[in-house]
Amino acid sequence: MESESNYKEEEPEATMWSQKAWALLSTVRSQSPLIQCITNFVSMDLMANTLLSAGASPAMLHTLEELPEFTPQVHALCVNVGTLSAGWLPAMKLAAELAHKSGKPWVLDPVAAGASSFRLKACLELVELKPTVIRGNGSEIIALAKASVEPTKGVDSSHESTDAVESAKSLAQASGAIVAVSGAVDIVTDGKKVVGAHNGVAMMTKITATGCSVTALIAAFVSVDQSHVLEATASALSIFGIAGEMGMKMANGPASLRIHLIDSLYGIDEACVLSHAKITSLS
Amino acid sequence: MESESNYKEEEPEATMWSQKAWALLSTVRSQSPLIQCITNFVSMDLMANTLLSAGASPAMLHTLEELPEFTPQVHALCVNVGTLSAGWLPAMKLAAELAHKSGKPWVLDPVAAGASSFRLKACLELVELKPTVIRGNGSEIIALAKASVEPTKGVDSSHESTDAVESAKSLAQASGAIVAVSGAVDIVTDGKKVVGAHNGVAMMTKITATGCSVTALIAAFVSVDQSHVLEATASALSIFGIAGEMGMKMANGPASLRIHLIDSLYGIDEACVLSHAKITSLS
Amino acid sequence: MESESNYKEEEPEATMWSQKAWALLSTVRSQSPLIQCITNFVSMDLMANTLLSAGASPAMLHTLEELPEFTPQVHALCVNVGTLSAGWLPAMKLAAELAHKSGKPWVLDPVAAGASSFRLKACLELVELKPTVIRGNGSEIIALAKASVEPTKGVDSSHESTDAVESAKSLAQASGAIVAVSGAVDIVTDGKKVVGAHNGVAMMTKITATGCSVTALIAAFVSVDQSHVLEATASALSIFGIAGEMGMKMANGPASLRIHLIDSLYGIDEACVLSHAKITSLS
Repeated sequence: MESESNYKEEEPEATMWSQKAWALLSTVRSQSPLIQCITNFVSMDLMANTLLSAGASPAMLHTLEELPEFTPQVHALCVNVGTLSAGWLPAMKLAAELAHKSGKPWVLDPVAAGASSFRLKACLELVELKPTVIRGNGSEIIALAKASVEPTKGVDSSHESTDAVESAKSLAQASGAIVAVSGAVDIVTDGKKVVGAHNGVAMMTKITATGCSVTALIAAFVSVDQSHVLEATASALSIFGIAGEMGMKMANGPASLRIHLIDSLYGIDEACVLSHAKITSLS
Repeated sequence: MESESNYKEEEPEATMWSQKAWALLSTVRSQSPLIQCITNFVSMDLMANTLLSAGASPAMLHTLEELPEFTPQVHALCVNVGTLSAGWLPAMKLAAELAHKSGKPWVLDPVAAGASSFRLKACLELVELKPTVIRGNGSEIIALAKASVEPTKGVDSSHESTDAVESAKSLAQASGAIVAVSGAVDIVTDGKKVVGAHNGVAMMTKITATGCSVTALIAAFVSVDQSHVLEATASALSIFGIAGEMGMKMANGPASLRIHLIDSLYGIDEACVLSHAKITSLS
Repeated sequence: MESESNYKEEEPEATMWSQKAWALLSTVRSQSPLIQCITNFVSMDLMANTLLSAGASPAMLHTLEELPEFTPQVHALCVNVGTLSAGWLPAMKLAAELAHKSGKPWVLDPVAAGASSFRLKACLELVELKPTVIRGNGSEIIALAKASVEPTKGVDSSHESTDAVESAKSLAQASGAIVAVSGAVDIVTDGKKVVGAHNGVAMMTKITATGCSVTALIAAFVSVDQSHVLEATASALSIFGIAGEMGMKMANGPASLRIHLIDSLYGIDEACVLSHAKITSLS
C-alpha cells in the first residue's frame, strides 16, 4: 500500500477475494466433491480429515488396476510424491493422464523435488502430464523450475516463498499450470499475475503434512470452479490459513493446533472468512 | 414400539443387551486379545489406537512370509481392503485362510467394494474364505450382495443402512457370516434375525477411518466370545457409538471428537454402558 | 538409595544428567538435524510430529533409488521394522550401510523381533550392519540377544525392561551398539555400564507408536553428539518421558495424552528438564 488512494482502490478487491473464498468453501460443502488422493503414507490421515472437515469426500486409492474405472468418476485428483517409490509412480502417471483426458482437474505436490535425481525426474515427468495446479514450498518450486537437484533440507524448505516468485512464474509459463508456493506468504501465479494469500501461522510448519493437506484442499476448491483455478487455489490457501489462525488461539503447541485447525476448518462461517481472508494482488 | 405391552416386553431385552455389551468390553480389557490387522494406510493409526484404548493388543502385520507363523497365534484377524493393491491381496487371502483353519475369527471390511471390478472381485474372493463377520456401509453391502460394480461415492455410502437390510440378510445367508451395516442405525444380521445398534453421532462420519476402526473393535469383541458372534458385533458397534456420544459432549469439531471418542472408549464404565447402550431387535 | 551418604553422592550425578539432557535438546532445537526415517506405516505420523516438535526435521524416505544420493546428506537414520515386508528390507539395509559408511549414526527399532523367523532374520541382518543404537522393549531385546523366535504378544512386550538387562548387555557387547530397553524404567547400556531413565507414565503404552517415536528422537539426539551416544540415548528417553508426565497432567485418556505429550515436548523448558529428569546409574 503506497498511498491512501491505493488503499481505497484495493478495498473492493479484498472484499471480492474474501467473498470468492467463502463462495467456494460453501460450494465444496454443498457439493461434497469426490477427491482422489494418491499421496504419501505420512499425510494420509491428516489429508483425509482435512477434506472431510471442509465438506469434501476423500478417496485414498492408488491401485493401477482400478484407475481406468475409478479416476474418470472423481471430481479432482491430488498426486503427492512424498514417499515416492518405483512401484507407485506408474499409478501416479496413469491417474494424471486419466484425469486430464476426462477433463478433471489434478493437482501436483512435488514433495522434496530436489532431494534426488530419481525424485526430480519423476516430478518433471508428472509436470509433463499437465497438472492444473502445482503446489510446493520455495525449494521445491525452485528445483522444478531449474530442473536441478540441489543440497536439500529433506522435506522442509530452505527458501522463503518470496524467493521463489520468478521460479514460480517460469514454471507456470512452461507447464501451463497455476503454481502455488507456500510460505509466510503463500504465492499463487499463472505466470503473469501474482497473488499473495497472507493467512496462516508459523506453527503450522511444525505439524507434518499440513502442506500436503492444503494441496488436497486446493484440489477440492478447483473441482467446484474449474474456470477460476487461480482464484480457487488462493482461496483454499487462505481458508486453510484462517483455520490455522483460529486454531492457534486455542493451541498449546503443534499437536493441539492440528486438532483445533481441523475443527476450525469444519466450523468456519461466512463472517469469519470475510473478516480474516487476506488475499492481495502482488503484481 | 407399538404399545405399552410391547414396551414392557422389551425392557428386559434391552437390559440383557446392555449387560452383554459391558461383559464383552470387560473381557476384552482383562484378556487383552491380540488382534492382527491387515488394513489400509489411512486407518492404521486410528485402528491401532482404538484397539489399545479398548484394552486389546493390535498387530499391524501384513507380510506374506510371516503369516504362517504369526496368524495362528492371534486371537482374531481384521482384513480391510481400503488401499487395496495387487501386492497386498495374497497376504489378505492367506491370513484369512490361516485364521479360518486355526479356528480364529476373522472380520472383513469391504471398503468401497463397488468402486471397481478389481476391488469387487477381490472382496468376493475374500467372502469365499469364510469371514466370521462382514462390516460395511450400505453401498458396500449392497455391492457385495449384488456382486455388482456401480457408480460410487468413493468410500462414503450413498445408501442408508436401513436400505441395505435385505442385501445384508442375503449376504449373510450366502456367506455364512454375520453381516453388519453401519449408518445412522447400525444393522446386524445372521440372515434371519436383525438387530439394530442405535448409538453414535453423525459427526463420526466426518472422521476418516472410524468405520475401519469399529470393524477392528468387532474383531476384538468376537475374539473373546466366538459362540455369540452376532451379539459381540452389535455390542462393539454400540460401545463405539457410546464413546462417540460421550466424546461429542466435549467436541468442537471432528478432530476433537476423534480425541474424545478414544479417551471415552478408554474410560467408559459399567454405569455408562448400561445407561447408554441401545440395541434392539428389528425383526 | 541405601543411605543418606549415597544420596549425597548421587546428587551431582543426577544434576549432571539433567544438564546433559537439556543441553542436547537445546542443540537439537538450534541445529534442527535432518533425520531420515524408514519406518512402519502406523508410526509415520506420530514419529514425524515427534521430531518436528523436538526441533528436528524428519524425512520419511525409503526408496532404494534415492538412498545413495540422500542418506549421506542426513544427520541420522532411524530404521523401524514394524510393518516389515520383503520389498522394504533391501532399502533398510542399504540405508544402514550408507549411514555407516558416511559416519552418520543410525538407530534400529526391532519391532516384534521374535514374532517370526523372517522378522528375526531381518533384524539380525540389520544388527550386523552396525547400528549406533538399538531400542526395543524387553521381549524384542531378549529375542535379538538369544536370536530366537518365541511365543509373542505381537508388538507389546511380555517382559519388564528390568528382566532384559543381561540380554541388553550381551547384545550391546556382541553388536557394538548402545542398547536401550523401554519399560517402566528405561534401561540403557553399552555392555558394561547400565543407566536407567525413570521418566514417563504407564498410559504411554496405550498410544500406538510411542516406542517408535522415541527411537526417532534418540536418532535426533545422537546426531548432535556422536561422541556421547549412551548419554544422548538416555537423555532422549528421559525427555520423551518428561513430556509424557507433563502431558498426563492434562490428559483424560490416551488420545488426549498423545496431543499433550507432543505439545509438551515442543514447549518443555530448562527448568522443567532440570527438575524432572531422572537418570541414574544402575551399575
